[in-house]
Amino acid sequence: MEVIEVLHMNGGIGDTSYANNSLLQQKVISMTKPIREQAITDLYCSSLPKKLCIADLGCSSGPNTLFVVSELIKTVNTICKKLGHDQSPEFQVYLNDLPGNDFNAIFRCLPRFHANLRNEMGSALSPCFFTGTPGSFYDRLFATESLHFVHSSYSVHFLSKVPEGIESNKRNIYMASTSPPSVVKAYYDQFQTDFSMFLKYRSQELVTGGRMVLTLLGRRSDDPTSKECCYIWELLAVALSDMVSEGLIEEEKLDSFNIPKYTPCPAEVKTEVEKEGSFAIDRLEVSEVNWNAYHDELCPSDEFKDGGYNVAKCMRAVAEPILVSHFGKTIMDEVFRRYKEIIADRMSKERAEFINVTVSMTRKG
Amino acid sequence: MEVIEVLHMNGGIGDTSYANNSLLQQKVISMTKPIREQAITDLYCSSLPKKLCIADLGCSSGPNTLFVVSELIKTVNTICKKLGHDQSPEFQVYLNDLPGNDFNAIFRCLPRFHANLRNEMGSALSPCFFTGTPGSFYDRLFATESLHFVHSSYSVHFLSKVPEGIESNKRNIYMASTSPPSVVKAYYDQFQTDFSMFLKYRSQELVTGGRMVLTLLGRRSDDPTSKECCYIWELLAVALSDMVSEGLIEEEKLDSFNIPKYTPCPAEVKTEVEKEGSFAIDRLEVSEVNWNAYHDELCPSDEFKDGGYNVAKCMRAVAEPILVSHFGKTIMDEVFRRYKEIIADRMSKERAEFINVTVSMTRKG
Repeated sequence: MEVIEVLHMNGGIGDTSYANNSLLQQKVISMTKPIREQAITDLYCSSLPKKLCIADLGCSSGPNTLFVVSELIKTVNTICKKLGHDQSPEFQVYLNDLPGNDFNAIFRCLPRFHANLRNEMGSALSPCFFTGTPGSFYDRLFATESLHFVHSSYSVHFLSKVPEGIESNKRNIYMASTSPPSVVKAYYDQFQTDFSMFLKYRSQELVTGGRMVLTLLGRRSDDPTSKECCYIWELLAVALSDMVSEGLIEEEKLDSFNIPKYTPCPAEVKTEVEKEGSFAIDRLEVSEVNWNAYHDELCPSDEFKDGGYNVAKCMRAVAEPILVSHFGKTIMDEVFRRYKEIIADRMSKERAEFINVTVSMTRKG
Repeated sequence: MEVIEVLHMNGGIGDTSYANNSLLQQKVISMTKPIREQAITDLYCSSLPKKLCIADLGCSSGPNTLFVVSELIKTVNTICKKLGHDQSPEFQVYLNDLPGNDFNAIFRCLPRFHANLRNEMGSALSPCFFTGTPGSFYDRLFATESLHFVHSSYSVHFLSKVPEGIESNKRNIYMASTSPPSVVKAYYDQFQTDFSMFLKYRSQELVTGGRMVLTLLGRRSDDPTSKECCYIWELLAVALSDMVSEGLIEEEKLDSFNIPKYTPCPAEVKTEVEKEGSFAIDRLEVSEVNWNAYHDELCPSDEFKDGGYNVAKCMRAVAEPILVSHFGKTIMDEVFRRYKEIIADRMSKERAEFINVTVSMTRKG
């Protein structure tokens, strides 16, 4: 399985699309806004650039895609007004995701988005230029010293590949309490390799003094198989395992499937940043969000009151393409029907939250 | 009709797709290669940039999309070797087309394209970064002084909109020998407005000394309704008009349809470039290409020996989306069946060629 070919959110705007099932990710983006706001304010005030180049890595396709970028542009525009500048800088925005992402859908929204932005910001807003950059952020994506600000939310926890040597992780699809130590080590090794590569490439692309704000799914605990990061996947493994027992999925199929991601604790993030050496950490924070994005929201319809339904849909929008590439399309409805039931049962008995690790950094000189 | 919303080549990779029907455009690109080669060589040798930013405007989606860009990269790489440089500059490539273009298809080809390029060029090739920039080239598309080389082939003859005040152009769909003078003037006025705007925006985006090479469908004759540029559309009007006579299309529908394009002669191009003032013309040349791209080729199958078939398919790939937006999808097969017959008849009786106007320019200081 080539991650670059199969990892993408569900495209389009249908019922199972990421575009229609990304409230959770939006909540996380909103929660981490103050961190970005401080970073872009510091950046702008310390350098007053004529052109501000911003990259959003793992932008996906949906309402969240342009959310962070428009918020950053508005923040800079507000600072410019406060400082009495007639014009904001020009903005060059790079929207990045893997080549399987639905860039057409983003691009077709851009003319209206652009018009709304101009309306809202008025004549002080200088031209904004939007481009799409397909590719893996575990490669170089941008020219040398061409960026001022890099953002990524809920993407960098994906690894460049499934770690090698984890054949013994049978009946699990991610690190789990029952995973052998060698599996846990292989996952951590892959995270170290990938994240340090990520930092190296971004350090080449960012100007000195440039900022980077990343939010990853992570954990508070030192234990990489802690329930707070692995449980959601253990429950999906239960659904798949039940289907193996009933002969609906071949055992070998399940045994050979593993999710290419790693959910680090803050100390692991800090260690890699310090080891790589190009960035100084300005802030490193942990937050949490309920599995069910609607748990404190007005629900758009009755079915959204069902937490199991919401969480299963959210997970489906993210995980379906990678599951389809391994298990085929036909069993997906059944997998997620079972997953929904299992999640609903667990949520009725315990508090269920995702842990977010956010790190804000400055490119050293 | 908003041109930005309806003008794009037929997407996908099906029988009527642009990707499968763009040999003509590729031939034109090959014919004009020496002009681009000279321009990029002069550019590189005079400035020896560390980073070379190239934009291809109206890149479409198909085998031609990456053709010019890869040829430019190879040319620079060859010069670097000749000059004894260890490394080529970094390349930042912007692929531009309107938001309706199939960028997903381009992006999904990029990993393989990139790998082939690296293989072919070897280790002297520095990183190449590819981005997609959706939008109209009658707006600003790129940051100020961010480009070194702009290319466009078979795109800038499209206008930003259908000229106003051409209601009297009944039964025609473009300028024709039977068009009233006011229609011809309206088309020329729109060309002047659009082309000078195009030049102004590109002059802001290009660095001093930057180059631009444009190939437009045009004409040799001073007469804007000359057969050499208008006849192909007159024949499409005949097919549509026949269908009006048979009650298959409403007369009012045909009367209110006009193609947003203009096919200038070299003198008209020269006049606008000189009036706008930012560019010096290095070369201004005219070439021609047979309507039937396969007329001197080994045909992939017997049906390709039919010139009417080839030309109608080529025109369909280009014109169908704009026709569909006005006439609806259902009559398209019938329109192009008739068009094919009409073209075949004319081609059996006379020589039929498209005229290309190519202009190579340098951004003045």
